[in-house]
Amino acid sequence: MKAKFPYEPWAVTEEVFAAKNLRENESVFALANGFIGMRGNLEEGCAAGAETIQGTFLNGVFDSEPIVYGEKAYGYAKNHQTICNVMDAKSLLLTADGEALCLGRSDVADHRRTLDMRSGTLRRSFTWRTASGAVLAVESQRLVSLRRKELAAVRLRVRCLSGGCDLQIESPLSPAVIAEGDPNDPRNAAGKDRSLTTACVRAEGDVLGMTQQTKRSGYTICCAVAHRGVSGGSRAEDTGARWCADVPLSAGSEVCLDKSICYLAAQHADDALPDRAAALCREAPNFDALLQEQRAELDDFWAGVGLSIEGDDALLQGLRFNLFHIYQSAGRDGKTNIAAKGLTGEGYEGHTFWDTEAYILPVFQYTDPALARKLLEYRYAILPRARERARELGHDGALFAWRTIDGDECSAYFPAGTAQYHIDGDVAHAVLEYVDATGDRDFLARYGAELLAETARFFRDLGFFSAEKDGHFVLNCVTGPDEYNVMVDNNVYTNCVAEETLRGAAAAMDWLRQERPEDYARLCRAIGYREAEAESWLAAADKMYYPAARDGIVPQDDGFLQRRPWPLDSIPAEKHPLLIHFHGLTIYRSMVCKQADLILAMTRYGERWTMEEKRKNFFFYDSVTTHDSSLSMAVFSLLANEIGETATAYDYFMSSARLDLDDMHHNTKDGLHMANMAGTWTGLVMGFGGMRLREGKLSFAPVLPPQWQGYRFRVTVRGSCVEVCMRAGGPEYRLVSGDGVTITSYGKEIALSL
Amino acid sequence: MKAKFPYEPWAVTEEVFAAKNLRENESVFALANGFIGMRGNLEEGCAAGAETIQGTFLNGVFDSEPIVYGEKAYGYAKNHQTICNVMDAKSLLLTADGEALCLGRSDVADHRRTLDMRSGTLRRSFTWRTASGAVLAVESQRLVSLRRKELAAVRLRVRCLSGGCDLQIESPLSPAVIAEGDPNDPRNAAGKDRSLTTACVRAEGDVLGMTQQTKRSGYTICCAVAHRGVSGGSRAEDTGARWCADVPLSAGSEVCLDKSICYLAAQHADDALPDRAAALCREAPNFDALLQEQRAELDDFWAGVGLSIEGDDALLQGLRFNLFHIYQSAGRDGKTNIAAKGLTGEGYEGHTFWDTEAYILPVFQYTDPALARKLLEYRYAILPRARERARELGHDGALFAWRTIDGDECSAYFPAGTAQYHIDGDVAHAVLEYVDATGDRDFLARYGAELLAETARFFRDLGFFSAEKDGHFVLNCVTGPDEYNVMVDNNVYTNCVAEETLRGAAAAMDWLRQERPEDYARLCRAIGYREAEAESWLAAADKMYYPAARDGIVPQDDGFLQRRPWPLDSIPAEKHPLLIHFHGLTIYRSMVCKQADLILAMTRYGERWTMEEKRKNFFFYDSVTTHDSSLSMAVFSLLANEIGETATAYDYFMSSARLDLDDMHHNTKDGLHMANMAGTWTGLVMGFGGMRLREGKLSFAPVLPPQWQGYRFRVTVRGSCVEVCMRAGGPEYRLVSGDGVTITSYGKEIALSL
Repeated sequence: MKAKFPYEPWAVTEEVFAAKNLRENESVFALANGFIGMRGNLEEGCAAGAETIQGTFLNGVFDSEPIVYGEKAYGYAKNHQTICNVMDAKSLLLTADGEALCLGRSDVADHRRTLDMRSGTLRRSFTWRTASGAVLAVESQRLVSLRRKELAAVRLRVRCLSGGCDLQIESPLSPAVIAEGDPNDPRNAAGKDRSLTTACVRAEGDVLGMTQQTKRSGYTICCAVAHRGVSGGSRAEDTGARWCADVPLSAGSEVCLDKSICYLAAQHADDALPDRAAALCREAPNFDALLQEQRAELDDFWAGVGLSIEGDDALLQGLRFNLFHIYQSAGRDGKTNIAAKGLTGEGYEGHTFWDTEAYILPVFQYTDPALARKLLEYRYAILPRARERARELGHDGALFAWRTIDGDECSAYFPAGTAQYHIDGDVAHAVLEYVDATGDRDFLARYGAELLAETARFFRDLGFFSAEKDGHFVLNCVTGPDEYNVMVDNNVYTNCVAEETLRGAAAAMDWLRQERPEDYARLCRAIGYREAEAESWLAAADKMYYPAARDGIVPQDDGFLQRRPWPLDSIPAEKHPLLIHFHGLTIYRSMVCKQADLILAMTRYGERWTMEEKRKNFFFYDSVTTHDSSLSMAVFSLLANEIGETATAYDYFMSSARLDLDDMHHNTKDGLHMANMAGTWTGLVMGFGGMRLREGKLSFAPVLPPQWQGYRFRVTVRGSCVEVCMRAGGPEYRLVSGDGVTITSYGKEIALSL
Repeated sequence: MKAKFPYEPWAVTEEVFAAKNLRENESVFALANGFIGMRGNLEEGCAAGAETIQGTFLNGVFDSEPIVYGEKAYGYAKNHQTICNVMDAKSLLLTADGEALCLGRSDVADHRRTLDMRSGTLRRSFTWRTASGAVLAVESQRLVSLRRKELAAVRLRVRCLSGGCDLQIESPLSPAVIAEGDPNDPRNAAGKDRSLTTACVRAEGDVLGMTQQTKRSGYTICCAVAHRGVSGGSRAEDTGARWCADVPLSAGSEVCLDKSICYLAAQHADDALPDRAAALCREAPNFDALLQEQRAELDDFWAGVGLSIEGDDALLQGLRFNLFHIYQSAGRDGKTNIAAKGLTGEGYEGHTFWDTEAYILPVFQYTDPALARKLLEYRYAILPRARERARELGHDGALFAWRTIDGDECSAYFPAGTAQYHIDGDVAHAVLEYVDATGDRDFLARYGAELLAETARFFRDLGFFSAEKDGHFVLNCVTGPDEYNVMVDNNVYTNCVAEETLRGAAAAMDWLRQERPEDYARLCRAIGYREAEAESWLAAADKMYYPAARDGIVPQDDGFLQRRPWPLDSIPAEKHPLLIHFHGLTIYRSMVCKQADLILAMTRYGERWTMEEKRKNFFFYDSVTTHDSSLSMAVFSLLANEIGETATAYDYFMSSARLDLDDMHHNTKDGLHMANMAGTWTGLVMGFGGMRLREGKLSFAPVLPPQWQGYRFRVTVRGSCVEVCMRAGGPEYRLVSGDGVTITSYGKEIALSL
């Protein structure tokens, strides 16, 4: 397959415009800052012969509507939540002597768009030969400020190369045009009522303003747009507002317009919002200043990442693209998170899943710990909802929603939703790993211990000591990460995370009691904790049940090996993904996996199994896994590396590293696959780099696939940033910043200092 | 609990009208003939302070609408089907000197309603003291003709006892007023769009006519009403038609109005329908003649049943009430069946489940074999749909819908719907048992063999020979009758019916090949049958897997004993039924049953287990079963009798025998529980009577509970009707009609002849 973009180290460039790629490239070229997300839509909207998905999203801002069930029953999730596609402020329409610019119709040459991952901008340039004979060089540049949550900006520059024309520039502020979506694909938001009510429109001088409201969830969204550099006029319209300027151009003359855009949202009516938005965009720094800030912000990020590959430009581009997008999409306010598609599209309706904790958080934990903390604070912010949900289901502790925006369960199919109790363990694991990697005891005392205690309580209550299993602690009727095996008993992954949660919570409460007696006392009062609980957690952890291996094969759950074999090579390619082409009962009855499940457990809880067991199970599960989930291949790559199957690891790694850049799942149009994007970092650092962390100590065991000359990455642990550089001659380690540390390389200790 | 009705052998009488009982008594007093069903609504509709559920239903006539799912997936049932509540023709409104009759507001005394189970009528009488001073004796009588599918009739008689008045009698023909229903109870039709389009209204002399159409399923429903005995006038109205008569009454005078009502339905537009309906009701026999026919029809039925109990009038009333209602509700045309609530209400939307084959059919098989055959022909009529469904799910053979009216799957929750594959085995079992009981080889050749072959094919394809189970044939991811344990492996009941299906199909094809070579050749061509298939069916049957008992306890399925114990006495009474108060995951995880499942297998496939095993498992499953299904207690009663626990059998039997008469499940308002009603017959005949049939041979082992002086029943096998009369002195057997037979009594053979 030929890649659509030339392999550049820091950019993704579309050299030739193709109408058929418009929707997927709108995702590829999306910009965001953790709050505002703008799809890479053309300024003029669409192009001739192309389909478009227009989109501007605000993290955490959603509308809801009741879920309708064919047959309803007790405890089902009550409401859908769907991220709002808010008013569009990024558009700019050009008309020359009455001819509207439109790709595919207008005479346009040298069209080029570039996502610049160091400057954090989307640049576009082309030459437009107007019907009236003028030749115009058009350039635009767009950014969503990583340093200023509410701000985005657009710069337009038009130079007249020859001839002359009357150019009209229109800047509309209008409700989003919402694409329909495929009603038969359960993974997108089709069929949900996603339209907002436009409550008020303002047009004052060079500033436009619009307020919208969600129909049911109570959100008010406000946008203001200020125009500079060109004098024009604005007017309010029925469906929005519009700023307009007429600019006569002659050969050699040029015009430069800057737009600053401000988005604000509040969950309750707030009359001050429109004025605040107008003031913020009027007072925004100029475009050049914003560019400078943006570059500085990204320089910091890339310095923390410190990643490069020698000998594979396509891969390097893919890895950086992935990191750039997860960085853009992460909520930074402790109240928002990362949706499965980030802020790049409406796929999965803007919901947050376990993806954050299981896939994305490790990246930030080792490259931008402050951001990682903010994402974990989100879990603390929705802990009250998780407590209510546990109570509704008759359980102690807290149960996080399988999919949600504000914390309420939105999964309308509980066997592959609510039954994925492992999400509680994923959160707990993330807390423990974050604290281990960062040493952030403040987080543990304020938030972490409570998260651990409530999730431990949940697991303790969910399972029981089974006489039928010799008194072992079992977790029945659960769904693991693999959604092709639902409501199973003793899913190994779930039992592993539950055990980790129970032990971690007991240790955290013990630490809190001894080291932070005041915090401990506060927490005991707040959640009614008694010391005997930790004993009961440890008793369950000590007796946690794991299904016995048969001929070396560890069953993913009690019944997995009883299922009906379904050789994958008997299933035609067009019947994938299975969930779209077979009834759940057919899938659940079969010995087939959607994604890594036991394999994920083996990578994360590696000490439980011997290398020989890992090898045997890798090949077995490899033979029964469809990888219908984009979360799968990165994990297989990880374990392949661990068992020394570097070539297999490389193949899996490569087939996930450019998944969105090359639109390999054919649904990049609905948004980018955040978890997979993060998984490629893990595949490099933990897979090829062999990086592991145990009690604050880093170890590495780098291998170099023959396809590369070398690679390099940085990880920050407890304030010390270590750079690993692997080449044919072997690894080199360097302390980039922080206190001296001792790391382990292939089992041998090495002390690093500045 | 005091019974609401006096204990009469052949009637159910409401002696005092109570507004609060109106809705449930509308079900109790329902009349039907297998096609038309009329709820026991008051002629004037409702009463002051009462809630009513108006209803007239035509068997098999439904509307459909797409099922909306929270998350849709491949192979889900596409459309709801909901039985139509058609135009109301039974109402009669009385107005005396401008005062409309209304119970609770009018001065009414001696109100009395009687369901007469020998005459098949609903009678009503009361005295009305009008505001204007007249005293009127009002009587009405209603019947739905058991001999004439399309006909019903109402007679009204008003005598003026004293005073005088101008009486106005209005007979409206109007669209049904559809009750709302509880949207949180998944068992009723709330939320479905059930309104019909009224296409045409006629009023000609004493005849009214109305045509309605369903919105999506294409049905046309036609009703005509003719009035006799009183001269009046009729008029068409916006919403219907109305016949009206003004009758001046003085002391001693009386008026008698007869209404004959005709309902017709066609699945396609049929312009001739209105005229046919008008002609049919004009030419209908007069009321007295209809009464006579009705009585004769019911005399035949009761003669076939021959049931009585000495020493328990309440029970006798309950049993006869149950039999009367299932007889009324059964479709007689080979294209319709019995809905879960018969034609008495909208509960379960008029759907047919396995209830017919597993519970109701045995009753008719032994008391009215011709009716039993018609019900089985329904399965043959929908076999093409069942084939399509199997294909859609990727299976060979045919899979009957879990719930349906016309054969298409309507179950919107597949774990307790489509996954109940045992319905195929229930149908196959019914075919085999029907043929054994009746000797109806014509049925076997025409319909039965094909039903058996297609269901056997399905099971053969559903299961597989599992290496993990020593090469046994396993059926994984199925739901047995017990809906509190879903998607389990090797549900014993399912495996039993599957084995019976596989063996029965092989034997039937073998018989057909040898005895009916032409039918055999036709069938082979029609369904592409090859002889090797039967071998493969028998191979699967021979290796059918049954989970091994543990300490004598037979697990209901592979995992049942692994589930979490949930002592029933720890669940407060108000938390029943569990499905309304707990999440499915909580229920499925627990060692708790909704209803008889293994116990049903033990009663039906008794030869598989020793008496000691049956005893042990009876007590164990008794301790974990909530009986949240009305299908449960009759089966427990049956096995309790078999193991000699007569007192327990009696308790279970009694608590199900009057379930609807005493509204014990608090939902009789939505319709009567047909399967439970049938189950009480089985409880008497097969439970206390110990009746069994094996290869055309009857055996009995009657026991007499100390509460009764005696009981009596009749069963017809292969044309011979045997009466069993059990008293303290022991049983007496008598051949009532047919050829001489040899029966077995407590293992001893007895020859009976006329």
